[in-house]
Amino acid sequence: MAKITKVSPLAPAVFPDLPVIDGVRFATVAAGVRYQGRTDVMLAVLDPGTAVAGVFTRSATRAAPVLDCQDKIGGPSDGPAAILVNSGNANAFTGQYGRASVEQITEAVAQATGVAQSRVFTSSTGVIGEPLPHDRIVARLDELTAGLRADALEEAARAIMTTDTFPKGASAQVEIDGKTVSIAGIAKGSGMIAPDMATMLVYIFTDAKIDQPALQRMLSEQTDRTFNCITVDSDTSTSDSLLLCATGASGVEATGNADFARALESVMLDLAHQVVKDGEGATKFVEIRVTGAASDADAKVHGLAIANSPLVKTAIAGEDPNWGRVVMAIGKSGAAADRDTLSISFGDILVAEKGWVSPSYREEDAAAYMKGQELVIAVDLGLGEGKATVWTCDLTHGYIEINADYRS
Amino acid sequence: MAKITKVSPLAPAVFPDLPVIDGVRFATVAAGVRYQGRTDVMLAVLDPGTAVAGVFTRSATRAAPVLDCQDKIGGPSDGPAAILVNSGNANAFTGQYGRASVEQITEAVAQATGVAQSRVFTSSTGVIGEPLPHDRIVARLDELTAGLRADALEEAARAIMTTDTFPKGASAQVEIDGKTVSIAGIAKGSGMIAPDMATMLVYIFTDAKIDQPALQRMLSEQTDRTFNCITVDSDTSTSDSLLLCATGASGVEATGNADFARALESVMLDLAHQVVKDGEGATKFVEIRVTGAASDADAKVHGLAIANSPLVKTAIAGEDPNWGRVVMAIGKSGAAADRDTLSISFGDILVAEKGWVSPSYREEDAAAYMKGQELVIAVDLGLGEGKATVWTCDLTHGYIEINADYRS
Repeated sequence: MAKITKVSPLAPAVFPDLPVIDGVRFATVAAGVRYQGRTDVMLAVLDPGTAVAGVFTRSATRAAPVLDCQDKIGGPSDGPAAILVNSGNANAFTGQYGRASVEQITEAVAQATGVAQSRVFTSSTGVIGEPLPHDRIVARLDELTAGLRADALEEAARAIMTTDTFPKGASAQVEIDGKTVSIAGIAKGSGMIAPDMATMLVYIFTDAKIDQPALQRMLSEQTDRTFNCITVDSDTSTSDSLLLCATGASGVEATGNADFARALESVMLDLAHQVVKDGEGATKFVEIRVTGAASDADAKVHGLAIANSPLVKTAIAGEDPNWGRVVMAIGKSGAAADRDTLSISFGDILVAEKGWVSPSYREEDAAAYMKGQELVIAVDLGLGEGKATVWTCDLTHGYIEINADYRS
Repeated sequence: MAKITKVSPLAPAVFPDLPVIDGVRFATVAAGVRYQGRTDVMLAVLDPGTAVAGVFTRSATRAAPVLDCQDKIGGPSDGPAAILVNSGNANAFTGQYGRASVEQITEAVAQATGVAQSRVFTSSTGVIGEPLPHDRIVARLDELTAGLRADALEEAARAIMTTDTFPKGASAQVEIDGKTVSIAGIAKGSGMIAPDMATMLVYIFTDAKIDQPALQRMLSEQTDRTFNCITVDSDTSTSDSLLLCATGASGVEATGNADFARALESVMLDLAHQVVKDGEGATKFVEIRVTGAASDADAKVHGLAIANSPLVKTAIAGEDPNWGRVVMAIGKSGAAADRDTLSISFGDILVAEKGWVSPSYREEDAAAYMKGQELVIAVDLGLGEGKATVWTCDLTHGYIEINADYRS
């Protein structure tokens, strides 16, 4: 395993205080799937009536647990539900054996918890191409079930980490009809080690009452504006999974409530930003704001082209206000652009406009700005009303070290 | 300018002996466009009747010289033609001033050489966003014209370099109807420095007689199998240009001749490989062979997804036979793939088949193979007859150093 020696410089100072979400309990255990001396399995059990929505990687080589979850999402939600996640082994590219492991685990979780197998969701993250030692997990299920607690979300966040340098949590509360509804979520990503991959796993819980189809619609829409707007290195895992569970334990109906939707989006965005801030070797957090594009879709294409460009990302690492590389990325993106209507700003500094460097631009101002830890690159295409914001980090020696210099 | 201290370890031992191409003469000069103590302008003058074909960057933010060349390609080819290239300044993102520079240079070349301005093609490569000091070039045109020589192609290759660590040349000869036809070409790419970009410029000359529309068709087709199948970092320059000139001086008609087409493709492939071998920080040259895809187009999508993946490229740098990352890249490419029909080989070593690691695979064999300087990664999708081959290099600390650590 890669030698991750220190916490990302972009990490929050402390893990946030997360509210207890009524209707869900957590337990973790050190099952020795691969790692020693740390927890590597988390179990969540959700009360009857919990609606579960999910979004998953679009990879054509999806791992077995992802395929199993996708089959189960949207089924009847009367009974209780369970989520089991292990770190250390991704159970990906493991052929028939991988499917059998998922079957064994979900069956055993069903027996231990009394949850129907069709409502047991699993994720695995870690090394790929090696058989998952599912017996080690199954052997600990009674212990996990006995240890379930409502206030163990931070432990859960720690158990699902792989090369993450810090656990990731976020929450929000919102008043609806004079009552408080809570949302709390955890995430892991996006450290990676040979031969691991940058799997992003996210679990969000709320005690609001929302019917499953509405929950799924809201999750899918908000994923497009949050988790689908972040990129560390343009690579996509075979295992990315995001589950959103509404237990309804607050008794507050939040289907269609705009305040709830905003609160959920803030939790998703917070977790998404934390994933970027734990990008391998990241030293800068960068927001790319694209406006004036021919459409929102075009704006996102431009934003991701800039965010994924190795030349842009290395320039940011070098604190170099290299707007020429931003022009290059826009030009190659494939979305509509006109050099002569394009303007680019770094923070509040107008760098280029109308196809050339701005008359007011002074390189030393931009160079000073680039020394900051959180940066904004704003691009206006000057073509229409389309806009999008995406987030990324810089590309540094740390990335190469984590991904090339160490062997598993 | 970035401090490039040494020649790429993948560079050929010597610059090749190139045949003289009748009908074209070259001259170079140190005009001080940006660099000191080296040549930075090359002029080529082509005899009357030379057919000129070209392919150019698809960037939406193309530089002024590219737009000018695109306007001129395909015009009448009775009179002589000229190509002028400068390094040190890309004349890109320079607004109206950039267009005026191209106008000034092409007008002055026309006057100095007697070539119609509509047949004067220019390229510029180097820093972007700064006005091109075209006066420095114009002032040397009489000297350049007086110095034209048939045997100065290597000097031309050196004058167009920016951060290239070695000059790039390739040639082929082919017998047609008992007479010898020659092809010789030069290229630059793909070093880059803040705020430069990885411009690739290629100029190929032949004494064969080929009509312009046939020359253009052949060039476009073969570019798809050669220069469009290489990638260093997925970034696309605003200035990439490739000109193919057939002087006809041999008197040999080669329109539609398959031997000639093969010889030309070998020259283009040789130059394309040299560009990859001079990729920033490259220490490994990697061929990605994709077979069994649903279509040739799908095969190329998969090949480029693998070749552009930072995770695959850092694994190669680390000499890590990380086939899991190859699976990941295939999965994310968007082209058709089925995990359970997929097989992957590193060199002759079958690594994975039918959705899992091969029973015969031994990690130590693959690890030994990865220590080589030239590697082949072969992927068979098991779906159809589609195939493609692409070439790339590894992603190393050298890339970060060149692109982040140094300022211009």
